[in-house]
Amino acid sequence: MAALVAQAQALGPVAQSSAFAPRRGARAARSAVRVQAAVKLEAPNYVGKEEVPESLLRPGIDDPNSMRGRFERMIRGIQDQVCAAIEEVDGCNFRQDAWTRPSGGGGITRVLQEGNVWEKAGVAVSVVYGSMPAESYRVAVGRDIPFEQDDRVPFFAAGISSVMHPWNPHCPTMHFNYRYFETEDWKGIPGQWWFGGGTDITPCYVNEEDMKHFHGTYKAVCDRHDPAWYDKMKTACDDYFLIPHRGETRGMGGIFFDDLNDRDKDKIFAFSTDCAQNIVESYVPIVKKHKTDPYSERQKQWQQVRRGRYVEFNLVYDRGTIFGLKTGGRIESILMSLPLTASWRYDHQVDPQGPEQKFLNCVRNARAHRPAQGRRTLVVTAAKKAPQSGKRRLDATGYIVDNSERGNIFAVEPKQLYTSSPTSDRAARQGLGGIQGLAVLAAAGAIVAAVTLGIAKNPADTLQVCVGWHLGIASVQFDS
Amino acid sequence: MAALVAQAQALGPVAQSSAFAPRRGARAARSAVRVQAAVKLEAPNYVGKEEVPESLLRPGIDDPNSMRGRFERMIRGIQDQVCAAIEEVDGCNFRQDAWTRPSGGGGITRVLQEGNVWEKAGVAVSVVYGSMPAESYRVAVGRDIPFEQDDRVPFFAAGISSVMHPWNPHCPTMHFNYRYFETEDWKGIPGQWWFGGGTDITPCYVNEEDMKHFHGTYKAVCDRHDPAWYDKMKTACDDYFLIPHRGETRGMGGIFFDDLNDRDKDKIFAFSTDCAQNIVESYVPIVKKHKTDPYSERQKQWQQVRRGRYVEFNLVYDRGTIFGLKTGGRIESILMSLPLTASWRYDHQVDPQGPEQKFLNCVRNARAHRPAQGRRTLVVTAAKKAPQSGKRRLDATGYIVDNSERGNIFAVEPKQLYTSSPTSDRAARQGLGGIQGLAVLAAAGAIVAAVTLGIAKNPADTLQVCVGWHLGIASVQFDS
Repeated sequence: MAALVAQAQALGPVAQSSAFAPRRGARAARSAVRVQAAVKLEAPNYVGKEEVPESLLRPGIDDPNSMRGRFERMIRGIQDQVCAAIEEVDGCNFRQDAWTRPSGGGGITRVLQEGNVWEKAGVAVSVVYGSMPAESYRVAVGRDIPFEQDDRVPFFAAGISSVMHPWNPHCPTMHFNYRYFETEDWKGIPGQWWFGGGTDITPCYVNEEDMKHFHGTYKAVCDRHDPAWYDKMKTACDDYFLIPHRGETRGMGGIFFDDLNDRDKDKIFAFSTDCAQNIVESYVPIVKKHKTDPYSERQKQWQQVRRGRYVEFNLVYDRGTIFGLKTGGRIESILMSLPLTASWRYDHQVDPQGPEQKFLNCVRNARAHRPAQGRRTLVVTAAKKAPQSGKRRLDATGYIVDNSERGNIFAVEPKQLYTSSPTSDRAARQGLGGIQGLAVLAAAGAIVAAVTLGIAKNPADTLQVCVGWHLGIASVQFDS
Repeated sequence: MAALVAQAQALGPVAQSSAFAPRRGARAARSAVRVQAAVKLEAPNYVGKEEVPESLLRPGIDDPNSMRGRFERMIRGIQDQVCAAIEEVDGCNFRQDAWTRPSGGGGITRVLQEGNVWEKAGVAVSVVYGSMPAESYRVAVGRDIPFEQDDRVPFFAAGISSVMHPWNPHCPTMHFNYRYFETEDWKGIPGQWWFGGGTDITPCYVNEEDMKHFHGTYKAVCDRHDPAWYDKMKTACDDYFLIPHRGETRGMGGIFFDDLNDRDKDKIFAFSTDCAQNIVESYVPIVKKHKTDPYSERQKQWQQVRRGRYVEFNLVYDRGTIFGLKTGGRIESILMSLPLTASWRYDHQVDPQGPEQKFLNCVRNARAHRPAQGRRTLVVTAAKKAPQSGKRRLDATGYIVDNSERGNIFAVEPKQLYTSSPTSDRAARQGLGGIQGLAVLAAAGAIVAAVTLGIAKNPADTLQVCVGWHLGIASVQFDS
């Protein structure tokens, strides 16, 4: 049984979307392992630059004009476009590692290391044919489908992922990821599909003009497709890229979306394409502008400290990275995102009047624009609508962000429901039946925490609850 | 309710030992949060160097001649001894941050940064008074004690923790941690107690003489107390400091023990003290010997890459670090262990004939001495005896180590049963009743995985199973 799964980094949270909830018991052991086996990749066949197939789809099986084919062409075109733009500015070339897998799919990782402008820049494309346990599928689609223990649902995933770290502390790091996920028709249920992605920027200093350019580019992109999207997706980005133990976002945001399937597939594809086609425009002019800016030793040191934070986010919180590390994806592609150099200085302090402090104020108040913000904000991240069912599910961390500058961030529930662990199986199944209840439970818990910690003064205070990027307001009473 | 918990880094896995398994349901929300609140520290009162109290115990409540008092004096003496030895070699001084907490306990963190010999060296002591949910206590002691939902069991913990990163790639990094944990008498059950700790070394190159000195020092220490300990504790160290996604141990081992309470308390205290008193002797002569060794750019780069691996282990796998990050300990003390500088080079390759490859061979075969080793070894880490009950529990990651040089490492069950998540509560409770079953389940699962991956050729093959450092051999049939 050589089922495949996402090369996790390139696919990012998609991989998570297809995560698993095996059963307990004697049979469950097999199931649990099968699940894990499902995410173990077949050994790749590395291919030379000239031998990379025009398409990584299964020849003669997948229609090149299907969304699979169209999405693959789009991301491969974007890989070429982005790499060309970077090479032009940098003057050095990307190296390429490409592979195919016997049962279909493959990957193309391109990395430019120790260039003139970038210390490390990577752009990876990956196409995966895999199968997920029926249980996970059932959870994902939010329907009570009868199935046999060993049933598996085939899926397809394709994604592009990139991180670029420049040398100059005045040039920001940039990350993007665009992905498409599809399941086959199964037990009379039509195939499910969704899109995910985003582009975000991580400077070391606040340059308002640069930020206006970057965010403005994506606002314009979003507005061309749905005027409500930019605000939602910017908020989702701040939510996702939070480093709770630092009380900071990783960087200065951008846009982030996941499980997007609420309208015509072509429309979301057009949006994803538009986002991807604006990566270069949103980012490269900023680097061009600053690549020769002079900088001091202090500024370089500050950049290295911020690089350390980047590593903290990616290794401790990033779903794609953690999933990849724990399931045996290609390590070099997964960790391509880490900077060439990083630093951890004990109790690093900055001049309270200096530009480093200005930056910190910014990443510590990234949610200032939030509708549910304030010093008593509860955020339950990633409570998402299941594709095409409308049910919500809760699959990530919840925390209270206390914006009172006490830096109080409080983990309510550092767990993911949809994991490959038998231990979370029951909860996942219960979640199916009553995930709203779980969300409310977490919310109630957070309120108790807020009261306990003195963030909220009164147990009967109500907190605004922001559930994933599907913003919602919940008001929960605490009976002490 | 201002209950306290371990400043996680100094206490290391102790903190984990007191981790939690709240209930589901409406009441569970409160419970879950209370649990988390329990691990939120009271705001510390920072105190100047001259004001650090002679004891961090509660004056007038704790007997200075109790094990609490003796252990605190021991670790504070060790902190002085180690810091003095490091300062003597380095020529620079440690800075100190110390604090007390209103309800008792406190911490003393000392860091020497950018010295002459060490880029970063930290030694932290911490004393904590806290309380754990009765549910967690019940799990920890392995008895079916009736309790009320809101019951909490008071505990005391004290620990010392340290990491030292030298500049010179020929000088190894060293880490140690010694800790003592105690619960109060509760519901007629006498207070529980246990010791944990270890010292381990992480060079960048294999120097057999140095390793003989380091490991020999600890073998002699162990042998003075129990001739069976050294092998067990060295194996436990290799198990604990594994980086599964790299197929490497973090370094070259040492000793590691946890939940140690199988004999007279004074005897284990004497052993812990002996271990701690040999830190300087095991390590400092190695640094003295190599601190002025010349090194090349390539060697420095290799050190930086190994530092990256150190960060990967600490942020992705180290129980103390993760626990600390997610529960709001003092971040600067928790992450004191991270190196001043680290590097991630894409697809870093070494000369197959060079000393870097020799090092890799070593960390990729750290278990060569293992009784249950071989190319089809299954390791379920950290299945420990619950203190004073003899029941085993499974609380960490299981994986297959394939020593066939294919570098195949396979996550069976990347979960911790004893977490603060409601989702793992049921499993934790089931675990109480039948943890052996769960271990067998994981073993069976791993075998299926092994077969699936072609590591084992025949489904009916039996694998040797090593459960934590309580070595055991399990033979499990797979009925396909």
